[in-house]
Amino acid sequence: MSRLALGVDIGGTKIAVGAVDAAGAIRARRTVATDVEAGFDAGLARLVQAIDETMAEARTDPAALAGIGLGCPGPFDEASGRIENFYTLPGWEGNDIVSPLAAHYGTPVRLVNDADAALLGEALAGAARGARIAVMLTVGTGIGGAALIDGAILRGAAGAHPEIGHLVVDPAGPECYCGQRGCLEALAAGPALARAGAGLGYADAEAVFAAAAAGAAAAEAIVARSADAMEMAVWSLIHAFLPEVILFGGGMGERHFALYRDAAGRAVARAVLAPVGAIRVVKATLGNDAGMVGAAALMLEDA
Amino acid sequence: MSRLALGVDIGGTKIAVGAVDAAGAIRARRTVATDVEAGFDAGLARLVQAIDETMAEARTDPAALAGIGLGCPGPFDEASGRIENFYTLPGWEGNDIVSPLAAHYGTPVRLVNDADAALLGEALAGAARGARIAVMLTVGTGIGGAALIDGAILRGAAGAHPEIGHLVVDPAGPECYCGQRGCLEALAAGPALARAGAGLGYADAEAVFAAAAAGAAAAEAIVARSADAMEMAVWSLIHAFLPEVILFGGGMGERHFALYRDAAGRAVARAVLAPVGAIRVVKATLGNDAGMVGAAALMLEDA
Repeated sequence: MSRLALGVDIGGTKIAVGAVDAAGAIRARRTVATDVEAGFDAGLARLVQAIDETMAEARTDPAALAGIGLGCPGPFDEASGRIENFYTLPGWEGNDIVSPLAAHYGTPVRLVNDADAALLGEALAGAARGARIAVMLTVGTGIGGAALIDGAILRGAAGAHPEIGHLVVDPAGPECYCGQRGCLEALAAGPALARAGAGLGYADAEAVFAAAAAGAAAAEAIVARSADAMEMAVWSLIHAFLPEVILFGGGMGERHFALYRDAAGRAVARAVLAPVGAIRVVKATLGNDAGMVGAAALMLEDA
Repeated sequence: MSRLALGVDIGGTKIAVGAVDAAGAIRARRTVATDVEAGFDAGLARLVQAIDETMAEARTDPAALAGIGLGCPGPFDEASGRIENFYTLPGWEGNDIVSPLAAHYGTPVRLVNDADAALLGEALAGAARGARIAVMLTVGTGIGGAALIDGAILRGAAGAHPEIGHLVVDPAGPECYCGQRGCLEALAAGPALARAGAGLGYADAEAVFAAAAAGAAAAEAIVARSADAMEMAVWSLIHAFLPEVILFGGGMGERHFALYRDAAGRAVARAVLAPVGAIRVVKATLGNDAGMVGAAALMLEDA
């Protein structure tokens, strides 16, 4: 029997725990509410219970595990285990989530950026399997990104996670909290479409997509502008990394994959300096499980 | 005595050959004219003579060498050794430069992109020494680029060289042969400044820089626009790679380093998602020797 690791995907609303084997198969799983309002200690207690139940169902115990990987939205301090994200996890910031779990279970515990974890999961058992060099964009409320190079997740200066969703697309575009105007996230994430659609009476980004699909010209124009931004960002990603595989994941990224595939395809088609035949544009296949599988994969790699 | 490799830097006007040791020191060197007009066979004969003289001066011979690295402007076909560049090396395209040298000397011979070679050289013995992750922009007639990740040069899909100088900066900008409007090269390389300056009576890019330095407002505006483009490209490079070191090299890159350092510094300063204290902007220190040293470094690594 191959060794197992636990992968944990910590989101703003749910925490998913899975016991994952070396092939990326999930042997047992639990999902609990994050319930950030109840505070960090209550959340940690729920996580511990979910881990215990998952181990029991997978018939494993802490001593047999390769470790526990925690996929978490950044920023966090990897060395101290401290969560610093106050946007997705308000009230949890400043708390060390690693040390209590490591002490309780006596097994290695690591934090990993959730976008990095998703690409690791796709590389182990999903749409990036076998790729040497891949870039993933996770499109939703924000646009997360990760790069896999020679089989390893790209870690930047100071070991930090590069924020690929903030490549500049149009320096005259809208301001973003990242410090730049017209980055990809400011132009193509859900809130960008929602803002543009609000003046037309659309409730949110999905309402804009639905109206565009039904042929409403103004909604089509909003969707087309976001696709143009994606095309430009993919252009830059091609010229920066020359990836073999470009993956789209996340809620919007998967629901509207055809839109992003076509936008990325337009960038690939005119990239005359790149070996375009060697570049594939694919949809992530693990869905919400990618982060959990990838967080476990990190521990299985370490082991 | 440490092992030597030969590094060759093949340019449009000159070919430089050096015997380089493991510390990056050049023990002997020769420079000959490329003289592409005389044809490939004549060029190859001159190169062989320069290699022979360099080996003699360095008191080494082919059997003692780690190999011969050929830094060459792309594109080329690494597997077949065939030069495919007809812009810098007109008339040489279609010729295999690797096999005749390998057969003649009985030592390993490899082609390496000249921008990659320059960064390898700077990493071994120049401004990127000790960096785990670095990006170099070589600014001149074009804008070449290379990335070093975990100590190795980034090779993209199909082993190809990513053209980092063609990241998009302004999708409404001028057309480039790369297939994109408003890429960095189209906005900030020498010809972009020369074109903008021609209507004002400036002979070339350096005349525009000189006029700007002397306070001519129109020339200052041209220079400022190119610096803005560099700022945006550096922004995207920071968010793609999160490099510890950003190097500027090449004729323009070194002569006008202060301009590019300040432009890059503006991008770094507002990148709130990046660990900006961990990012340095530096001038390449090996000058024209970087490619030669890096091409040799590649063979020393392999050996």
